[in-house]
Amino acid sequence: MTSVNQQIVLAARPVGAPREAHFSLAQAPVPEPSDGEILLETLYLSLDPYMRGRMNAGKSYAAPVELGQVIVGSTVSRVVRSHHLGYAAGDVVLANSGWQRFALSGGQDLRKLDPAEGPVSSALSVLGMTGLTAYVGLLDIGKPAAGETVVVSSAAGAVGSVVGQIAKLRGCRVVGVAGTNEKNTYLKETLGFDESLNYKADTFADDLAGACPEGVDVYFENVGGAVFRAVLPLLNVGARVPVCGLIAHYNQTSAPEGPDQVPKLMSLLLTKRILLQGFIIGDHTDRLPDFARDMSGWISSGQVKYKEDIVEGLENAPGAFIKLLEGGNFGKLIVKVA
Amino acid sequence: MTSVNQQIVLAARPVGAPREAHFSLAQAPVPEPSDGEILLETLYLSLDPYMRGRMNAGKSYAAPVELGQVIVGSTVSRVVRSHHLGYAAGDVVLANSGWQRFALSGGQDLRKLDPAEGPVSSALSVLGMTGLTAYVGLLDIGKPAAGETVVVSSAAGAVGSVVGQIAKLRGCRVVGVAGTNEKNTYLKETLGFDESLNYKADTFADDLAGACPEGVDVYFENVGGAVFRAVLPLLNVGARVPVCGLIAHYNQTSAPEGPDQVPKLMSLLLTKRILLQGFIIGDHTDRLPDFARDMSGWISSGQVKYKEDIVEGLENAPGAFIKLLEGGNFGKLIVKVA
Repeated sequence: MTSVNQQIVLAARPVGAPREAHFSLAQAPVPEPSDGEILLETLYLSLDPYMRGRMNAGKSYAAPVELGQVIVGSTVSRVVRSHHLGYAAGDVVLANSGWQRFALSGGQDLRKLDPAEGPVSSALSVLGMTGLTAYVGLLDIGKPAAGETVVVSSAAGAVGSVVGQIAKLRGCRVVGVAGTNEKNTYLKETLGFDESLNYKADTFADDLAGACPEGVDVYFENVGGAVFRAVLPLLNVGARVPVCGLIAHYNQTSAPEGPDQVPKLMSLLLTKRILLQGFIIGDHTDRLPDFARDMSGWISSGQVKYKEDIVEGLENAPGAFIKLLEGGNFGKLIVKVA
Repeated sequence: MTSVNQQIVLAARPVGAPREAHFSLAQAPVPEPSDGEILLETLYLSLDPYMRGRMNAGKSYAAPVELGQVIVGSTVSRVVRSHHLGYAAGDVVLANSGWQRFALSGGQDLRKLDPAEGPVSSALSVLGMTGLTAYVGLLDIGKPAAGETVVVSSAAGAVGSVVGQIAKLRGCRVVGVAGTNEKNTYLKETLGFDESLNYKADTFADDLAGACPEGVDVYFENVGGAVFRAVLPLLNVGARVPVCGLIAHYNQTSAPEGPDQVPKLMSLLLTKRILLQGFIIGDHTDRLPDFARDMSGWISSGQVKYKEDIVEGLENAPGAFIKLLEGGNFGKLIVKVA
């Protein structure tokens, strides 16, 4: 085993879109586990849009990553050496090692995975927090009824692709929004979406109206910006809008030009009795047992399919993350580290 | 009995704030009830901010009032002559006669009132739709828990004053927002609000922050505009914002200058997991039995107090309505007609 721990640390705080220069590759000794500790080696690192918020100085819903610190992130890791009774060398666990090859854990935040049950990387995607995010946001906040129309943005992404498939299982008309024709074809032909549209098309707003002839009952919001503006006039009375992400805003450095559309938005909420609710999956882990039961059933029956976009090598994490914020991934973005 | 029906009709569509010239007093013969119909004489007419929306040409959540038509509105009326088996001359009913002295009804939309139970005008205020609006918006959407901080705007109005009192009964810290010191004193000294603030004060945003040292858990939105902007930064994680009215926007003719604050609002909803929900009381009449039981109990025990601002004479309805939109009323605005 190497004695060097490869790490990616925050070198500078991005203003607007992050660039390679905001990250640097650092080396440190592989740490030694003390009593009760476990040394983990990262097999897979999850890259998620929320990490962009953690690179800002201000407190968002969690503390920021400090300059020079390893960037946070969920991982699937293998136990290298354990001084903890609950874990043995060779165990594979869900962990929070961040953007580095080796890390210590006291065991509190680990969950053992069974490689016999399928690819362990799925614990970072459809069977992990991203799957749970889709499940809770759609079912508990969106509450779709059979026959209703559900629109989901970032539809080829880790969360959106699962949202659309669960909505289909609930008997809804499902319209996806994604940024390439290849993604939209996949969503329709492989995942069974009723329609999927490219938000980069000049005709997008009209395309969306045409794809939702009975209006929109649930809009699962992952992006904000122009997609949100195109959906607003289509929302039906009583529509629900779970707000899961706003990837179009994460790199914004200033508010867009006016006029201020807040009064118009509020009037729409009132006259159409619309529910708009932000959520963060960490508040909903009580739903894990239901989710795990339903989702593993749907996956083994083939009713939910998933796609992972696996990038090789920790050194490629910054470039992959930059592309993620631009919509350049296709499926759940994961870095294969060891 | 007079043979002339006094009516107030929409003479012109207001653009911005309505003026007297948008209304005209018309005279018509008192109508004759046919078989199954009832002739009603209006005792009290309810004036409510939502009526402003009905004066616009575009469809809001209900059809607009046409030019030359009698303006819509709830009334407490007395049966003058009845050709309907369910009603007899002298009965007092809750009705929808609009801004006129006499009207016909087929009986479907009437509810009998018992004058022995207290002043019948309360069927237009605390025991009517405005009370139900406060009850449903606060309890079903705001869901306040004991110890939480509830802020209510238009706090001396028909809905706001009831919202604050129910929140006190639920053990909350209650902060009102109203436009005169007289109203704010009344809210604190007579209704028991913990604090009540004048939004016209230059120091309003600071005053509000000072009055909510633990942030805001429920904001009951009646006004929009500057009060909403002052509340936003104070909202706690998991806050609920029932959107009941936006009186600051009703007379607006164009969107305010930029920048566009929608992205900032959406980001706040996401990071703080805030619920924003518009509602209209007509969707919630299933709550009438619970409401009637609770509210009549609270009124007879003195736990909820109410104030009616009664204007004499139908001809004074336009002026009173114009003042209502400017915040010039104090309590539920009602016109005494007959």
